[in-house]
Amino acid sequence: MQILIINGPNLNLLGKRETNIYGNQPFEEYLTELQGKYKNCDIHYFQSNVEGEIINKLHDCGFTYAGIILNAGGYTHTSIAITDAVAAIKTPVVEVHISNIFAREDFRHISLLGKNCIGSISGFGMKSYDLALDYFIK
Amino acid sequence: MQILIINGPNLNLLGKRETNIYGNQPFEEYLTELQGKYKNCDIHYFQSNVEGEIINKLHDCGFTYAGIILNAGGYTHTSIAITDAVAAIKTPVVEVHISNIFAREDFRHISLLGKNCIGSISGFGMKSYDLALDYFIK
Amino acid sequence: MQILIINGPNLNLLGKRETNIYGNQPFEEYLTELQGKYKNCDIHYFQSNVEGEIINKLHDCGFTYAGIILNAGGYTHTSIAITDAVAAIKTPVVEVHISNIFAREDFRHISLLGKNCIGSISGFGMKSYDLALDYFIK
Amino acid sequence: MQILIINGPNLNLLGKRETNIYGNQPFEEYLTELQGKYKNCDIHYFQSNVEGEIINKLHDCGFTYAGIILNAGGYTHTSIAITDAVAAIKTPVVEVHISNIFAREDFRHISLLGKNCIGSISGFGMKSYDLALDYFIK
Amino acid sequence: MQILIINGPNLNLLGKRETNIYGNQPFEEYLTELQGKYKNCDIHYFQSNVEGEIINKLHDCGFTYAGIILNAGGYTHTSIAITDAVAAIKTPVVEVHISNIFAREDFRHISLLGKNCIGSISGFGMKSYDLALDYFIK
Amino acid sequence: MQILIINGPNLNLLGKRETNIYGNQPFEEYLTELQGKYKNCDIHYFQSNVEGEIINKLHDCGFTYAGIILNAGGYTHTSIAITDAVAAIKTPVVEVHISNIFAREDFRHISLLGKNCIGSISGFGMKSYDLALDYFIK
Amino acid sequence: MQILIINGPNLNLLGKRETNIYGNQPFEEYLTELQGKYKNCDIHYFQSNVEGEIINKLHDCGFTYAGIILNAGGYTHTSIAITDAVAAIKTPVVEVHISNIFAREDFRHISLLGKNCIGSISGFGMKSYDLALDYFIK
Amino acid sequence: MQILIINGPNLNLLGKRETNIYGNQPFEEYLTELQGKYKNCDIHYFQSNVEGEIINKLHDCGFTYAGIILNAGGYTHTSIAITDAVAAIKTPVVEVHISNIFAREDFRHISLLGKNCIGSISGFGMKSYDLALDYFIK
Amino acid sequence: MQILIINGPNLNLLGKRETNIYGNQPFEEYLTELQGKYKNCDIHYFQSNVEGEIINKLHDCGFTYAGIILNAGGYTHTSIAITDAVAAIKTPVVEVHISNIFAREDFRHISLLGKNCIGSISGFGMKSYDLALDYFIK
Amino acid sequence: MQILIINGPNLNLLGKRETNIYGNQPFEEYLTELQGKYKNCDIHYFQSNVEGEIINKLHDCGFTYAGIILNAGGYTHTSIAITDAVAAIKTPVVEVHISNIFAREDFRHISLLGKNCIGSISGFGMKSYDLALDYFIK
Amino acid sequence: MQILIINGPNLNLLGKRETNIYGNQPFEEYLTELQGKYKNCDIHYFQSNVEGEIINKLHDCGFTYAGIILNAGGYTHTSIAITDAVAAIKTPVVEVHISNIFAREDFRHISLLGKNCIGSISGFGMKSYDLALDYFIK
Amino acid sequence: MQILIINGPNLNLLGKRETNIYGNQPFEEYLTELQGKYKNCDIHYFQSNVEGEIINKLHDCGFTYAGIILNAGGYTHTSIAITDAVAAIKTPVVEVHISNIFAREDFRHISLLGKNCIGSISGFGMKSYDLALDYFIK
Repeated sequence: MQILIINGPNLNLLGKRETNIYGNQPFEEYLTELQGKYKNCDIHYFQSNVEGEIINKLHDCGFTYAGIILNAGGYTHTSIAITDAVAAIKTPVVEVHISNIFAREDFRHISLLGKNCIGSISGFGMKSYDLALDYFIK
Repeated sequence: MQILIINGPNLNLLGKRETNIYGNQPFEEYLTELQGKYKNCDIHYFQSNVEGEIINKLHDCGFTYAGIILNAGGYTHTSIAITDAVAAIKTPVVEVHISNIFAREDFRHISLLGKNCIGSISGFGMKSYDLALDYFIK
Repeated sequence: MQILIINGPNLNLLGKRETNIYGNQPFEEYLTELQGKYKNCDIHYFQSNVEGEIINKLHDCGFTYAGIILNAGGYTHTSIAITDAVAAIKTPVVEVHISNIFAREDFRHISLLGKNCIGSISGFGMKSYDLALDYFIK
Repeated sequence: MQILIINGPNLNLLGKRETNIYGNQPFEEYLTELQGKYKNCDIHYFQSNVEGEIINKLHDCGFTYAGIILNAGGYTHTSIAITDAVAAIKTPVVEVHISNIFAREDFRHISLLGKNCIGSISGFGMKSYDLALDYFIK
Repeated sequence: MQILIINGPNLNLLGKRETNIYGNQPFEEYLTELQGKYKNCDIHYFQSNVEGEIINKLHDCGFTYAGIILNAGGYTHTSIAITDAVAAIKTPVVEVHISNIFAREDFRHISLLGKNCIGSISGFGMKSYDLALDYFIK
Repeated sequence: MQILIINGPNLNLLGKRETNIYGNQPFEEYLTELQGKYKNCDIHYFQSNVEGEIINKLHDCGFTYAGIILNAGGYTHTSIAITDAVAAIKTPVVEVHISNIFAREDFRHISLLGKNCIGSISGFGMKSYDLALDYFIK
Repeated sequence: MQILIINGPNLNLLGKRETNIYGNQPFEEYLTELQGKYKNCDIHYFQSNVEGEIINKLHDCGFTYAGIILNAGGYTHTSIAITDAVAAIKTPVVEVHISNIFAREDFRHISLLGKNCIGSISGFGMKSYDLALDYFIK
Repeated sequence: MQILIINGPNLNLLGKRETNIYGNQPFEEYLTELQGKYKNCDIHYFQSNVEGEIINKLHDCGFTYAGIILNAGGYTHTSIAITDAVAAIKTPVVEVHISNIFAREDFRHISLLGKNCIGSISGFGMKSYDLALDYFIK
Repeated sequence: MQILIINGPNLNLLGKRETNIYGNQPFEEYLTELQGKYKNCDIHYFQSNVEGEIINKLHDCGFTYAGIILNAGGYTHTSIAITDAVAAIKTPVVEVHISNIFAREDFRHISLLGKNCIGSISGFGMKSYDLALDYFIK
Repeated sequence: MQILIINGPNLNLLGKRETNIYGNQPFEEYLTELQGKYKNCDIHYFQSNVEGEIINKLHDCGFTYAGIILNAGGYTHTSIAITDAVAAIKTPVVEVHISNIFAREDFRHISLLGKNCIGSISGFGMKSYDLALDYFIK
Repeated sequence: MQILIINGPNLNLLGKRETNIYGNQPFEEYLTELQGKYKNCDIHYFQSNVEGEIINKLHDCGFTYAGIILNAGGYTHTSIAITDAVAAIKTPVVEVHISNIFAREDFRHISLLGKNCIGSISGFGMKSYDLALDYFIK
Repeated sequence: MQILIINGPNLNLLGKRETNIYGNQPFEEYLTELQGKYKNCDIHYFQSNVEGEIINKLHDCGFTYAGIILNAGGYTHTSIAITDAVAAIKTPVVEVHISNIFAREDFRHISLLGKNCIGSISGFGMKSYDLALDYFIK
């Protein structure tokens, strides 16, 4: 069972800065934990700051993987193109956010992506990815 | 460890109608499953169609329970009073929706509650409650 | 043939105040007239100022009655929860207003309820209920 | 007692197309039924696709007829000129719609006409006209 | 001279939580002070989290009391139904807020109630009730 | 020197109804006064309730007349087509309103026509036409 | 194969005025060219400044012609009634504009008609009609 | 018969700059012409760039003068205070603009003043004042 | 204890005009009453129609007085500059309105000043000042 | 004569998914047809999901090619940067859409690109490209 | 070379209050530094809290000075009249803000003045004036 | 002291096109001038049309450089992702625009970036970069 985690712009800095919002753990470290915990599941990881590369990755994996966990960062609220990509592929996509998007600035309250995803999980810190994996496994 | 699930207006009809959106399982049946699965956890349940009774319940349990899982139904998008109640209590509250609110009508895209909750989970059908419980237990 | 008339907030004061807008006849008096006129039809009546009690009543009668006539008063324009209740039940609902909602304040021009009702009748004073009954009988 | 029914743009096609929304009965056929049913009442009929001709007709009959039943079709939502005409005449006007305007596209939710009409009836199919006639006769 | 103070949702928690906004005195304690200070005046108190119960209370006392002091909490900004109730009764109503509604979130800047009240007092902490009483007594 | 006065929808009823807003003089009577007062000027008159006929008239006279005085009534605020016609012709057009459009409903505050007219005069009753003629003669 | 070209308000002035926007060729001249070029195709032409006459024409030809090319001019952006007519007929309609509507004033950016047409072509000057014909022939 | 002309901010520069919009005649020169033309009428003039001084002048003359001609310049669109002053005085006020406010930037389309003035004249260059005087004299 | 009352634009006309809204007592007369009633308190008064003079006065007294009562009239809703001045001084400011701002035109519902004031009192006629003084004394 | 076709995000999936909206032909297959049909014309093709790469390509070819046909997909509605690129180059650009953008979601109704393109063609399926080529060749 | 610095409302309090936003140096002290640093340049200074006095000063110096540096404070966002004054004079004006207007409240994000100024500098504290002087000297 | 200048989309065309807005000097030429003028300062340069590459560069240099001068071109107004990147790094960023963003189209008036930058400079042509460098050096 192949699962892909895609992290969007600025999420490569996790654990380095703005730790009051995003926590102080680098994502790679957390990924190792996840892979240890969910051994019967093949968890791949991709991060890019480039909108189009995220679309490319969705196309590449979106017809064969069992599930995609997508944290599109700032593109969540502006990218019609990523939203269209999620609609165009076959693999179900779960939207994930580390912080609670409803508790931040107004322009982060609306998710364009959301309407083409299966479901969305936000606000649980790194555990948001955990819960998304739980969903695919259950 | 005491967890309270609060369901708001019309959720008493779960399993009876609009099963294309909400699935065909009555909540009580699902609750029994949950209680069976999470035995070391004391799961209580409250449903009301009355906005003020939901506020009363949040006040009653909101200083002693370990967690509250709140699906406020239609009040999610209109109730400043419930939002204020969530802010006023001590117990952390997780917002839950059976359907994906971003994939439905425009007026369901904004959650007033969200900003005072720890996190929010929507779109996974009944499993949304499951994931919320996972969060409190982990 | 069972018909339920539901009156929402402040409509218990009909005939007592603001008679320039709502006329000077108490609803109970008018109800008796209606029951006399439509003898082969079983007309029940329910009034509440509580949003959730209106939802409860819609649930209770909404699977067995032949028709419901709903004047939701001030909740017409704000209650997603009642709107959802109308969508969730089987009995067809006719929306009724004593005054013409398009001739009053801007915030009364939009009916949230309307989209889930069969039809809507407004502006004919007490006769609005009369016309709604005509519809169910014809 | 003279009653005028005015139908606006595209309503000459009733019964021919979009029967899922408007039913499959030509208006002329329905009109004959109405005239048969309400014999002591003189029911005239006028249809035009031209905004200004509807205004002309309102002026012509609006000082002598007992009532006017107006389905202004697409002009309902855009015509300040027809709205002004309804305000300028003496005969009371009832606004009628075959489909429920609140259950259709957003731009059909607001009726400019409404504020100058006595009342409004929408969503009951052809029966909407029937109920409007009931009002004038009662 | 009978005066009724009505407190809306969450105001039963006064003195317990969010004391930085609302102060740390329970309302009951403050009420006793008020009753001591204004001896020639009969001050009653009602609190409810249920919108409809506030409407019921306004109907019950709104034709006989000399004045009503209403802090509708979160319903201030959303309840057309309470606003209608204030318009429907005879007793003059003064709107009161403990915190300054213009110094808080945007959605608290507009008071629906305000337009049917005599006047409004906000931002003086518990003293806001005091000033409202002064008005009725003078 | 040929001047054309065009009156739009409902202005054929001038002097008959809503005399509190529009005065009680039929336009034809006033026209005779105007023609008497401005003898060295050839004043023609056209009234229509049909938007397209007003456009036709603007085309017919808009390349030869010295001036056009246009009171487009309700079309002032909605007709892009008349606005385009005013832009397309050579004769300068003065916009005229009997009542003060800024003192009436919100939807009358904006004139689409205005931007293609030379100038606009509103609120002086019948004298508005008078002042427009003054402009062309001076 | 019968094709109808409908031109809306002010397009009878083509070639006479505002030639910087619309070019300097009268439409009739261009029509002759078109008819010469597409000989196996029967091209009819209708122009009117009256919204309702355009609707009438759509009804008349909209059940038998192979295609309709519609340049509704200023009605493009305001006419729900023409939009409804396009939805009501069987013949496919192609929306055409001489100038690029996205490069002009804001109120010309939205086409109400568009949603019921097969496709839309704008900005190619007279060639826009040419391309629309190409579509029907291919 | 005393008439006051009030010119608001920047109108002291008339004739000096932006002559493509405002013409190249200093207002004082034009004023002398006006005073020559209307000899039986006492025309006073006041100019200020200070909002409050315009209000003071309206108060000073607004109970004794026969008429006030007000060109409030940039304050036309922002000053609730001047609007209130016009409402508070007895002398009728005519709003005047040299350029056509509907043909300029969006923020100049709305006149706050307009609703409390008798009428408004815009777009005729200096002649706008002339037409306003005509009104008071006739 | 020094208290300053500042009245903004048009409030010098109190008692002269629009007495249906503002009452018929000149402010100076009312001031004498206030000074008589609150003898142990030094009440000063300043009125200006000039926005900048109000700011100057706030600066002059805003570091030494015990309290300022500010009725900024029409500037309440538009003046960022006065709002900034209230934020910049040390003396607490109470916002006061004679009429109920929520019961008047839409553009009077929002107070820019409010967010920097301690509290706000509106709708009690002249007594609004009285209540503000009560606050400072208590 | 060199023509470049640029396809934006997700258009590499043409023919694979959402065939109800976009048809079931891969673009490459269609391209071969086009190149066969227009032999005297050198048709190049570029597809990218990356906004910046589309800008790069516009810069590279935009000073030497005879024409560019641009289907910017989801970037059509959000990319000021691509819009600026179209304005900055010399080659004329035709905007093309496979589906009718006016018949889809609201956020697809506005084309930012449109204002800098020569013209726009939408809704004719793959034939939209065909018509754009016709334009450049004619 | 004469340069004028104009400071608008509340900037006379610089260095006294809100030092977290505006720094703790009085402007006069900073001015002396500037005058010392730029000796071959004649730097004048004007401060007023009155909108109209700022306009007067712009008129007085705006035809002879080499440059004006304008910090209009709260008037930046509301004053069409100052904006018009900047357009009316000949001297180029540079807009300056001590704090970063995009990092403060929403109503400070838009500068009305900006469009008529040469350029704008904001957010560099007192150094913003310095950079503006650099521009005029270079 | 290391300073990085980042130019966003289309700024590689500087000096080639639209010289009326952006001037006719290629940026590389101007850069050499800058480097000559500020010799004790190490000025690096990066240009990309790809949003994500700009983010990558901000991450790469944003923890070690002394300052970053960012002209994000069209991304200024749409990119939440770049805005987040500026917030996430340690190096202070100055926002720069060649043209005055307030004097161009409406959609260029708002800078999303601005709120996370130290300050912003716009409208001085190439000199805007110069002034930004001055700031870092001083």
